[in-house]
Amino acid sequence: MSFTVKFFPKNVDITLEDNVTVLEAAFRAGVEINSACGGKGTCGRCRVLVEGKVESAPSKQISQEEWDRGWRLACMTTIFGDAAVFVPEESRVEDLQIYESFTTGDVEELSPISTATYLEIPVPNLENNLGDKERLEACLRLSEGSLDIPIEMLRDLPKVVRDSGWRVTSVLDRSGDRPQLIDVNNWDTSGRNFGIALDIGTTTVVLALVDLQTGKTIAQASDYNKQIMCGEDVLARIAFAEDGGLERLRQLILESIDYLISQVVVLSDVCRPTVKKVCREEVTAMSIAGNTTMIHLLLGLHPKQIRYEPYVSVANLPPVYRAKDLDIKIHPQAPIYIVPGRASYVGGDIVADVLASGLHKRDETALLIDVGTNGEVVLGNKDWTVSCSCSAGPAFEGGEVASGMRAMTGAIEKVTIDAKFEPSYQTIRNDKPRGLCGSGLIDLVSEMFRVGLVDKKGHIQDVGSQRVRWNGDSREYVVVWAKDTKETAVSLAMKAKSGVWGAKTVQGNDIVITDGDIANIIRTKAAMFAAAEVLLDSVKVNFNDLDRVYIAGGFGNYIDVEKAINIGLLPDIPRDRFVFLGNAALGGAWSALLSRERREEAKRVYRSMTYLELTTNQGFFDHFTSALFLPHTEIEKFPSVMGRRKNG
Amino acid sequence: MSFTVKFFPKNVDITLEDNVTVLEAAFRAGVEINSACGGKGTCGRCRVLVEGKVESAPSKQISQEEWDRGWRLACMTTIFGDAAVFVPEESRVEDLQIYESFTTGDVEELSPISTATYLEIPVPNLENNLGDKERLEACLRLSEGSLDIPIEMLRDLPKVVRDSGWRVTSVLDRSGDRPQLIDVNNWDTSGRNFGIALDIGTTTVVLALVDLQTGKTIAQASDYNKQIMCGEDVLARIAFAEDGGLERLRQLILESIDYLISQVVVLSDVCRPTVKKVCREEVTAMSIAGNTTMIHLLLGLHPKQIRYEPYVSVANLPPVYRAKDLDIKIHPQAPIYIVPGRASYVGGDIVADVLASGLHKRDETALLIDVGTNGEVVLGNKDWTVSCSCSAGPAFEGGEVASGMRAMTGAIEKVTIDAKFEPSYQTIRNDKPRGLCGSGLIDLVSEMFRVGLVDKKGHIQDVGSQRVRWNGDSREYVVVWAKDTKETAVSLAMKAKSGVWGAKTVQGNDIVITDGDIANIIRTKAAMFAAAEVLLDSVKVNFNDLDRVYIAGGFGNYIDVEKAINIGLLPDIPRDRFVFLGNAALGGAWSALLSRERREEAKRVYRSMTYLELTTNQGFFDHFTSALFLPHTEIEKFPSVMGRRKNG
Repeated sequence: MSFTVKFFPKNVDITLEDNVTVLEAAFRAGVEINSACGGKGTCGRCRVLVEGKVESAPSKQISQEEWDRGWRLACMTTIFGDAAVFVPEESRVEDLQIYESFTTGDVEELSPISTATYLEIPVPNLENNLGDKERLEACLRLSEGSLDIPIEMLRDLPKVVRDSGWRVTSVLDRSGDRPQLIDVNNWDTSGRNFGIALDIGTTTVVLALVDLQTGKTIAQASDYNKQIMCGEDVLARIAFAEDGGLERLRQLILESIDYLISQVVVLSDVCRPTVKKVCREEVTAMSIAGNTTMIHLLLGLHPKQIRYEPYVSVANLPPVYRAKDLDIKIHPQAPIYIVPGRASYVGGDIVADVLASGLHKRDETALLIDVGTNGEVVLGNKDWTVSCSCSAGPAFEGGEVASGMRAMTGAIEKVTIDAKFEPSYQTIRNDKPRGLCGSGLIDLVSEMFRVGLVDKKGHIQDVGSQRVRWNGDSREYVVVWAKDTKETAVSLAMKAKSGVWGAKTVQGNDIVITDGDIANIIRTKAAMFAAAEVLLDSVKVNFNDLDRVYIAGGFGNYIDVEKAINIGLLPDIPRDRFVFLGNAALGGAWSALLSRERREEAKRVYRSMTYLELTTNQGFFDHFTSALFLPHTEIEKFPSVMGRRKNG
Repeated sequence: MSFTVKFFPKNVDITLEDNVTVLEAAFRAGVEINSACGGKGTCGRCRVLVEGKVESAPSKQISQEEWDRGWRLACMTTIFGDAAVFVPEESRVEDLQIYESFTTGDVEELSPISTATYLEIPVPNLENNLGDKERLEACLRLSEGSLDIPIEMLRDLPKVVRDSGWRVTSVLDRSGDRPQLIDVNNWDTSGRNFGIALDIGTTTVVLALVDLQTGKTIAQASDYNKQIMCGEDVLARIAFAEDGGLERLRQLILESIDYLISQVVVLSDVCRPTVKKVCREEVTAMSIAGNTTMIHLLLGLHPKQIRYEPYVSVANLPPVYRAKDLDIKIHPQAPIYIVPGRASYVGGDIVADVLASGLHKRDETALLIDVGTNGEVVLGNKDWTVSCSCSAGPAFEGGEVASGMRAMTGAIEKVTIDAKFEPSYQTIRNDKPRGLCGSGLIDLVSEMFRVGLVDKKGHIQDVGSQRVRWNGDSREYVVVWAKDTKETAVSLAMKAKSGVWGAKTVQGNDIVITDGDIANIIRTKAAMFAAAEVLLDSVKVNFNDLDRVYIAGGFGNYIDVEKAINIGLLPDIPRDRFVFLGNAALGGAWSALLSRERREEAKRVYRSMTYLELTTNQGFFDHFTSALFLPHTEIEKFPSVMGRRKNG
C-alpha cells in the first residue's frame, strides 16, 4: 500500500511504498532539512512539525511540551501512512526569505494602543495621603477610580513605588474608553515601549516590531503560516478544525507568531547596535489584521459556521484581549487589538487594506483589490463602501501551478519573450531560478499571449519552438531548462539516484508552465475582474470613472501593470491611476497600532461597508464566464490591448 | 512551662500546663465543641481552624486543601504552645445567631450591577449574517463591538446559541461604562438573577442574598470574621499580616464569606419553598462594604502602610474585579463591586453608611456616628461632608469587658436598676443570660450612674449592696448571679471538675461589670463624643444646629437613646432627631448593588468628603479629656441629664 507525505512550506508531496524516516522522505522529495549528526538523533537540528501517521522515538532534544505540540526529530520519526510535515525555517538548509514591503498610510498624530510614561510621584504625607493607586491616577491626570489594574499588579504596587523612591514607569492600555494598567515598573526611566503589527495570512505571516515612542518600525520578519500543513486554504483549515483540529491549528499559528517575535527581538539588537535589545516584556501592545478564519483560529473560536450558508462568524469585532488570554508571549497584560472584519470572507485584513489606502477618507470613488488565496475587492469613498470576496485560488501565490512558488529568493519575477519564443527573466536576489512567483506568472502569460504562444482561450500553441512540448497530459512551455536551475547538493544527489519519485517539481527540474497552469491563472484573474465588475454594477460606475485603483497583496510590489492589463487582471484605464500598496494588511495593522483615529476609522469602515455575497449572485457568474478569455470576451473593454496584440 | 490557648469567637483564653487536645482544652475553657464520636476522630464534627503551636494527626475527615488552610479535627490535634482556635458555627454546640438588621435607604429605580435578560435572537440568514457576537449585541441594543466577553465564553458562544435554537439568557455586568458579558446560557428563560450585599466588619461579617429582578432580600446570614483568631482589631490584623500572615488572613475572610454564602443558598430554599433554590452560579454580582483594612485583606493587598504615618492605603477605590480573580465562589465572572473608602480609617463601610442614611442628599446638616471596634463620625449635607475616625475600642461589641459579648442569644440588652440597687434585665430571645452586649452595657452604666452606683468618674461606689464586691483588683457589680446563668451540660461538667482554669469568664459564672470595664466604656464614649465635637468645631456648628443624628453599627438597634445621652455617648438634643440605621454598611452595600445612582453617589461622597486626621489633632485630645466623665466635665452640655440625676 502506498501513502503520501506532503512537505511544507515547499509544498511538495511524495508517494512512498515503504516505511522510511521523515528525513529520508524529505531527501527523496528534494526537501532540504538540516542534519548535522547524519541522522543519529543527537544534533537536534532536524526538528519538524508532523501531523498524520508517524511513529517517533522520544528524544532529549524535544521537551515534553514541544512533543505535545507535534515537534519531532525528522531522523527519529518513521512514516507509515499519509502525513504532513512542516520544516521550520531554522531546520531548512537554505534561508528563503519572503519579500514583503508595506504601505502604512499616514499617521498624523501618535496615539498608540499602549503608552509608557516615566513618573516622579509626590511622596505621601499627612496632607496628601491618597492611596497608592489614587496617587498614581492623580499623577497620570486620570480621574479617581478610572484606572483598571490587574489584581496581581495592585498587590505589587506598594512595593514597586516604594522600592524606587516613587519613581516609576507606568504603561497604559489606551485601546478602550477607560485606561488600563499594563505595567508599572521601576527599572526604566526612558519610557521605552514597543508594539507589534501582525498580518496573519492563510499562507504567510508577517510581523513588524514598532517603537511606540517614535512610530518607527525597528525590525520586520515573515514566515509561512505553519498551519499550511493542515490545509492550504481557508476551507481546508476549517475542515481540519471540524475534524477536531482547532486547538492544533491555534497552537500552530501561535508557533508561527512566536518564532517571528523571537526573530524581530534578535533583529532589534542587530538593527540598532547602540540601543538595548528589546525584550518581550517591553512589547506591550499588538495590532493584528487577518482574514476572519485566521482570526478565529488565533482566538480559538470554531470557524465551522464560516464554511456553511449563511456564512456567519463567531465575532467580527472581537474585544481587546490580553496577551496572556491568547497565549501570545509578549507582556502578559499587553492588549491584543484585532482589526475588525466586515464579514466571514471580507475580514480585518481587507479593512486594514482600506485603512492603509485611505480610500475611506477621499471624496473620489476608488477600487481596492487584494489578491491572495482569496480575492477581495472594495469599492467606495468617504461616504460609502461596498465589498465582496471571490475564491481566486492560490495561482498568484504559487499554488496549483507546476513551477509556482512564493516571492522568495530565486523566484522568477519578471519575464519577457522575444520573437523566437526565447524567454529572458529576472529572479529575486538574482539567484539561480527556482520557480515562478505571482508577478512572474503574470508577465509570462502576458508575454506568451503577446507573441502568440497562447491564444485567447489560454491554450498553448504549437509554434515550432523546442520549448513547447507535450507532457503526456497537455502542452507545456519550458521557461528554464533544468541545467540552468540551481544545482544544490541535494538535487545532484537526487539525480544520482534513479528512482521515480512522486513530487511533480522533482520530475526533471525544468521550470515550465502548462495548459492547466494557464487555465488556473485565467480563472483567478477572471474571478478578480468579475468581482470588481459586480461592485461597479451595483453602484452603476464604470472603470473609467475610478479615480484610483489600489492593489494590495504580497505579490503586488512586483506586478507589471501593463502586463496585468494585457491578461485582463486589471482594467484598461490610465496607468497612473494604479497605486501599489504592498502588504497593506500589515500597513493597516501598523497604523491601527499607532493611531486611535485609525482604530476609530476601522470601526466606521466596519459599520459603513456593504457586503455583497457572490455565491448567490448571478451577475458574478455572467461576468466570470465572460472574463475566461485573454484579456476578455468583450475585447472592447481592453482598447489598448486590442491595438497592441500581434496575432489577435 | 505554661502556654495560652485562645478560643474564638467566644473570646476566652485558658492557660495550660500540659499538652492536651484542642477538644480537651475547649472543654476546660468552657467552649462547647461538637463531638459525636467522643473524640475518636471518626465523626468529623469537631472541625476547627487552628493557628499556632499544635500537632495534628491527618484525618480522612479533612481534605488536603482544607488541611493547608488550617482546618483540623479538635480531637486529633494536640496543643504544645501558644495557639488560637476558631470554632466555626457548624462545630458549635449552640447556634448563637448574631442579630443584625439594616436600613437600606431608598432605591428609586432598579439598576443592579448585573442584569439578566432572556433573548430570542433572530436566526442568521444571507440577508442578516452578523457574527454571533454582533448578533447578540444587536439583540441587546448595544452598539457593535461595545460588549466585552471573556475569551472562554466567546469560544462557547456558537454552541450555546445554536443548541438552544437562538433562545438564551444573557447576564451583563453594568458596573462600568462598557457592558461586559458575565454569562450566556440556555437553561433559564425567567431572567432569574441574584446578587449579594456584604458587610465585612473586623468582628462580624454579614451577608444578604438579593433578588436582582425585584430588589428583595431573600435571605441574610452573619457570622464572626474568622480572622479574629489572628487579632481582634484592625491594628492586630495588620501586625499579623506584617508577620507573613497576609495570605492566611485572606483565606480566613474567604472562608467566612464562603460559609455565609452556603448559608443563604440553603436559606433561599427554606424561605421560598415555591421557588427553585438559588445556586451559586446564579449569583452574578456582589457589592461589598468594609473598612479599608478588611478590604485590603480580602483583595490580598498588604495593609502595612495603613498602620504607619502618613497612613496610606494601597487603594481606596479598587477596580471592579471578577469573582474568580478574588477566589470568591459565586459565578466566576461576577463583578465584585467595592464601596470606595475615603481614607485608611474612614473606609467603604462609612461611605456605605452615608449612602444608607441619605445624609449626602439633604439640605440640612446632619451627623452620622458608627460605633464599632473603631468609631467613625461624619458631618455634612448635600454640599459638603467631613469625617474622622477614632480608636473607640471594642467595649460596645463586648470586647475588653469582663462579661461582654456580641448581641447574640442570651445577651443582656436592656437593664434597669431599682432603688435597692437590684437590676432587672431583658435578654435577646429571652434566653438564659450569658453576658452583656453593647446596648446592655450602656443601659447598665447609665442606670448605675442614675442610682448612684457609680460616680462622675465612673468608679463603683460602696452603696452597701451585696452586689458590689472587691474582686482582688477592683470593685465590681454583679448583674446576674451564676446560679441564674444558663446551665449547660458543659458548664455543669466544668463545675464538677474542680480545676482552676485561666479564662476569666469561667471563674465563677457571675455576670459582672468592673471598675475597669466602666473605665473602658467611658473611654469609648469619650472618644466618640470628642470626635463628633472636633467635626462640629471644624465647621463651627453646634449639636443643637443638627437636624439629624444617624446612628449606625451592629449595636445600634437596641440602644436606649435616653440612656446613651445619660452617659454622654450621644449629645443632649431633642430625642426625635436620632435615627437608628442598624447595620448601615450592609444597607449601603445593598443599595449600591441595586442602583447605579448609588454607585455614582458613592464616588461623589469619596470626592467631596474631607478627612480630618485625629492622631495629630490637639483639639481632639482636649475634647477627649473633658469627656472622660459621666456624662461630661462640662455638665452644661447635658442639661436634661443635670436635671434628672439623683445624686449629681
